[in-house]
Amino acid sequence: MKADSAGLEVLSRRECIDLLASTPIGRIVFTDRALPAVQPVTFCLDGEDIVIRTTVKSRLASATRHAVVAFEADDFDPWTHTGWSVTAVGHARAVSDLAEIVRLSALPLTAWAPQGPDHFITVRAEQISGRRIRR
Amino acid sequence: MKADSAGLEVLSRRECIDLLASTPIGRIVFTDRALPAVQPVTFCLDGEDIVIRTTVKSRLASATRHAVVAFEADDFDPWTHTGWSVTAVGHARAVSDLAEIVRLSALPLTAWAPQGPDHFITVRAEQISGRRIRR
Repeated sequence: MKADSAGLEVLSRRECIDLLASTPIGRIVFTDRALPAVQPVTFCLDGEDIVIRTTVKSRLASATRHAVVAFEADDFDPWTHTGWSVTAVGHARAVSDLAEIVRLSALPLTAWAPQGPDHFITVRAEQISGRRIRR
Repeated sequence: MKADSAGLEVLSRRECIDLLASTPIGRIVFTDRALPAVQPVTFCLDGEDIVIRTTVKSRLASATRHAVVAFEADDFDPWTHTGWSVTAVGHARAVSDLAEIVRLSALPLTAWAPQGPDHFITVRAEQISGRRIRR
């Protein structure tokens, strides 16, 4: 097992992608008016790209246009003190091509917010890192 | 109920603080070498300040010194599509005063990582916002 300086298990890219595929919720991390910002989102994977939906007028859509963002997902058990986290960093892209919108619309990506989102953002996982904490 | 443009319930500062107090895990969001970064941490509240522990040599300790950071916690149920999230933004501070270190050491803040952390960082919740999603 490869471990980092804190003693946490270092996950491979393949393990990171598989863990991202196992959870419907993550957090997109970006800069909004020069301040760090974070927003939980539902997402799914399209190959190794992270796909999220939002409304075109949202703060998230404006702030992530042409930006490098981070995306994090995790799952921890507070009783056993075990779990994992994965963080991807890469360029966000607003999807504008109609054929791609149609294709992404068929992904199993459910919006939870009452006001249905109409806009896709993808994040390319250019860097990805993950850690697991075991007992 | 006050709602935002996505139809999510907007939480009061008091509700946000109470929700932060209900969970042991959050995510600190910062900038590391000009890139957005995020790291899950165990935390607890000291009044309305967020207290986390790390090692003094960590990337987190270096990157948050004198920085404005965001801190996020959430709890979502993927089955019912309900849950909440709270984000605080404020200045991070490395705690160096011995009396304060002794006082913070008595807080119910458990480190999960095998290599015990020796360093406290506090984040003042200068801005705080929260959303709840109900059925």
